[in-house]
Amino acid sequence: MNDNEWEQKPMGGKRERTMVAILRVLYNAPGPLGSERIAQNLRNAGMDISERAVRTYLAEADECDWTRNLGRRGRLLTEAGRYEVDHALVIDKVGFIAAKVDQLAYQMTLDPATRKGNVVLNTATIQPKDLRASLNAMRKVYEANLSMGRLLTVASAGETIGPFRVPNGRCGIGTICSVNINGLLLRAGIATTSRFGGLLELRDGRPQRFTEIINYDGSSLDPIEVFIRGFMTSVGKAAKTGSGIIGASFREVPVAALPEVRRVAVLSEKLGLGGILALGGPNQPLLDIPVPQGRAGLIVCAGLNVMAAVVEEGIATTSAAMSSMCEYSALTDYREIHSVVASIK
Amino acid sequence: MNDNEWEQKPMGGKRERTMVAILRVLYNAPGPLGSERIAQNLRNAGMDISERAVRTYLAEADECDWTRNLGRRGRLLTEAGRYEVDHALVIDKVGFIAAKVDQLAYQMTLDPATRKGNVVLNTATIQPKDLRASLNAMRKVYEANLSMGRLLTVASAGETIGPFRVPNGRCGIGTICSVNINGLLLRAGIATTSRFGGLLELRDGRPQRFTEIINYDGSSLDPIEVFIRGFMTSVGKAAKTGSGIIGASFREVPVAALPEVRRVAVLSEKLGLGGILALGGPNQPLLDIPVPQGRAGLIVCAGLNVMAAVVEEGIATTSAAMSSMCEYSALTDYREIHSVVASIK
Repeated sequence: MNDNEWEQKPMGGKRERTMVAILRVLYNAPGPLGSERIAQNLRNAGMDISERAVRTYLAEADECDWTRNLGRRGRLLTEAGRYEVDHALVIDKVGFIAAKVDQLAYQMTLDPATRKGNVVLNTATIQPKDLRASLNAMRKVYEANLSMGRLLTVASAGETIGPFRVPNGRCGIGTICSVNINGLLLRAGIATTSRFGGLLELRDGRPQRFTEIINYDGSSLDPIEVFIRGFMTSVGKAAKTGSGIIGASFREVPVAALPEVRRVAVLSEKLGLGGILALGGPNQPLLDIPVPQGRAGLIVCAGLNVMAAVVEEGIATTSAAMSSMCEYSALTDYREIHSVVASIK
Repeated sequence: MNDNEWEQKPMGGKRERTMVAILRVLYNAPGPLGSERIAQNLRNAGMDISERAVRTYLAEADECDWTRNLGRRGRLLTEAGRYEVDHALVIDKVGFIAAKVDQLAYQMTLDPATRKGNVVLNTATIQPKDLRASLNAMRKVYEANLSMGRLLTVASAGETIGPFRVPNGRCGIGTICSVNINGLLLRAGIATTSRFGGLLELRDGRPQRFTEIINYDGSSLDPIEVFIRGFMTSVGKAAKTGSGIIGASFREVPVAALPEVRRVAVLSEKLGLGGILALGGPNQPLLDIPVPQGRAGLIVCAGLNVMAAVVEEGIATTSAAMSSMCEYSALTDYREIHSVVASIK
């Protein structure tokens, strides 16, 4: 390797940024879009771009196989295009998890009084033959209260969970995401700061300490997904014996809001959305994690703990945190899910 | 769950800190130590503690099964005690990876002129029956230049790699850690800043972009270990076809030192310790990752890429980054390792 090979020219940062912005509009659209609609969409988002420029980018995207030209119906994103959006500009995604939590908390519209509105889900898919074993593993986690709440939904291939369509040959499972707590707090006027996802050691059912930590603002990946993929949890064991390693999230709330936080936590449990695992005192460390002056620590179970228990059973899953939203009324209590499963079959 | 169960008393932070400090002295000791030696050791590290206080802590540690009392020979750390040190005070370990890199770079003593001194190793263990298949997978990574350098060492059960003793029924492999580059740069008066470990996409043998990032200062885990555990690499494929996902580390060096950095990189390659995958221009983004004014980006292959290729083959390994140091002269070129393996068998 000689000197020249090492030296990298600065990449065309602005061009790549524009391309990814265009692809992202298609990524988030329910179907194909034309260049006019894409340009309008980008201008609404504050980007100064002409329809003509968008057309030039789209021609290049066609060549890269990122988009397919459907003629008058516009462009459709290909699988390669989807991969491109997911993997381009990764530096923008560091801290992106924290931003996504805030975004979804704002979009969560459930009104506790009427029980109408959307909640945030984690979605997973499994092979249909693994459904019974998966639900069994999940039930034990729900019973031990190591999940977020008691509600879930199951869908077969071709059906949707919110905007997520279950692929052929798979079975979809939607579970409550811990972001819903942030949503309920936000509706009560309380802003939550998400600090890190970690592995939490339970002993005799009580949280002892975090054994690993990944800060939300220092990672492009959801920390809990990383821990589950790496087989670092023992949620099933924790559910059975009270001792084990589960996923948990550390957040902070303003000290002045503590009484209201307690009220919201009770409300959230009543709604089946899950409660709080531990709440720290004003300005006090919680499980040895210090908080800034004026804040209190708050620990919630990872919503993905139920799926961790499935993975621990050796069942192959694809799993995505904070990936969908659906109507609260579409969810079922885990104690009644077997009748739902029977009816969709 | 009622209010009281949530509220956590601040834990005995100072007591736990002292206990862990005592256990850590035993952790780093080659054999059992008495309370007097432990107290002396802690006072040398700036901690104000009496021998009598150490004895009280050790009695408690015996009860918790963290230490075993060997009478006049002192206390020995148990497996449970070792686990305790590894998992206690995790908040102290966030950013710990960056600190460990700096510490080891300083301790790396190899003198390029005399080729004498210590280098930093990653150590891994496998089952002896997997040794041949592992070395084959590793060889391809070395040949494709996706490893750190060309040197490694193999040891059978009971033998040592630096201070690391290979456990019964296992076979040990020591490979070059990418921290050695920091060590060589430091000897040339250049301080390196370690920013993140990531997954790097290669296409036709050339680095394209990072697809995932975990900052060293936001994690208690080594990012590359996390990616390998989660089966997120395709180092074997990259070695074979030139295209795939490998582990890599992003660092920064002062702009003024760039000519010397190039010289050290050539030297490092000559020593078999591995070179630089990409070097950015002054103040310029490298693979779209911006750097502060006055710095240049530097990307090196993860030393663990060779072990990633082994894991990708479905071979069970235990692996630890930056875990050992050994004499440079004890290492062998990968092209000659088969004869070494034959001789130790």
